[in-house]
Amino acid sequence: MGYKVEIGVSNKHVHLCDEDLAKLFGAGHKLTVKKELKQPAQFAAEETVDISGPKGTLKGIRVLGPTRKESQVELAATDARGIGLELPVRESGVLDGSPGVKLTGPAGTADVAKGAIMALRHIHLSPAQAQEAGLKDKDRVTVKTYGSRPLIFEEVLIRSGDAHTGEMHVDTDEANAAGIKNGDLVEIIKG
Amino acid sequence: MGYKVEIGVSNKHVHLCDEDLAKLFGAGHKLTVKKELKQPAQFAAEETVDISGPKGTLKGIRVLGPTRKESQVELAATDARGIGLELPVRESGVLDGSPGVKLTGPAGTADVAKGAIMALRHIHLSPAQAQEAGLKDKDRVTVKTYGSRPLIFEEVLIRSGDAHTGEMHVDTDEANAAGIKNGDLVEIIKG
Repeated sequence: MGYKVEIGVSNKHVHLCDEDLAKLFGAGHKLTVKKELKQPAQFAAEETVDISGPKGTLKGIRVLGPTRKESQVELAATDARGIGLELPVRESGVLDGSPGVKLTGPAGTADVAKGAIMALRHIHLSPAQAQEAGLKDKDRVTVKTYGSRPLIFEEVLIRSGDAHTGEMHVDTDEANAAGIKNGDLVEIIKG
Repeated sequence: MGYKVEIGVSNKHVHLCDEDLAKLFGAGHKLTVKKELKQPAQFAAEETVDISGPKGTLKGIRVLGPTRKESQVELAATDARGIGLELPVRESGVLDGSPGVKLTGPAGTADVAKGAIMALRHIHLSPAQAQEAGLKDKDRVTVKTYGSRPLIFEEVLIRSGDAHTGEMHVDTDEANAAGIKNGDLVEIIKG
């Protein structure tokens, strides 16, 4: 193996469906691009929302675009506990049985019945990158980090297809545990 | 190898020297034991303090006893960033060059010139346990976890002596990254 990819640290964020976007920001509202992300067509929006759980509220949390079929709230365990939530570790889009939250925007609120998760750590690869690394979509790999607190992440999900390009996503707790930051290189040591 | 130890998750906490204890709680004050910890003679005290950094304050942070030669503040990266601090990863007691903080207690404040750190993850072993595991004080080992987000911690420090008994200490970011909690078993897979 020995295939290397850059780290992208996912801070807490929200994906919205069209219906929740309208509830929170008004009918017909379109997300405004603040910053393009590395993954094709994905962006950080100017828009932010407040996320409320049983014990508190996280204010001003970034919305990522474009809109999706279902709203999804991605928090690190530390963030989640602060508002009284224990979250499952899930692949993006696999939301059945995950807790709900209340979202608040400038135009109103949205009660999201499910969709709050800790993201399963994963590596995005283009089809060409996957071929070069000898991997395919849905493979699980072992990844070595070289930060100030070296560790090896096991069972890292590979996501590959035309909408993906080389980047490993971890949450803030995982980045802190490894002492790694955006742009640091990590190495797939076992396929 | 294959030697197993229990996890102890270290939440943010403070160790105080006698001088700072007097400043914060009054001359002659003695710490009150709230709960004995697993490590011999160590305890969580009833006393708490507020920890202030450049950008904010963490309120009601537990003091651990007994008092030490130097005050020491142990925070996870997530906690530290919340009050505007970037901390080095350090072995307990190795504090030169680490940032200072202001502590506030019921009787006054103490400006701690250095001593705010992220703790270097480590395993406490009694002399008999170290012998059984084939390890000695200051060794570095590799440790496999079996939580909901399996990973392998590299370069884990062994601390062994009469004041130690079998337990691996990680901070809350590391516990969250691995999906492990107090009492979970981890395994030393390489000495």
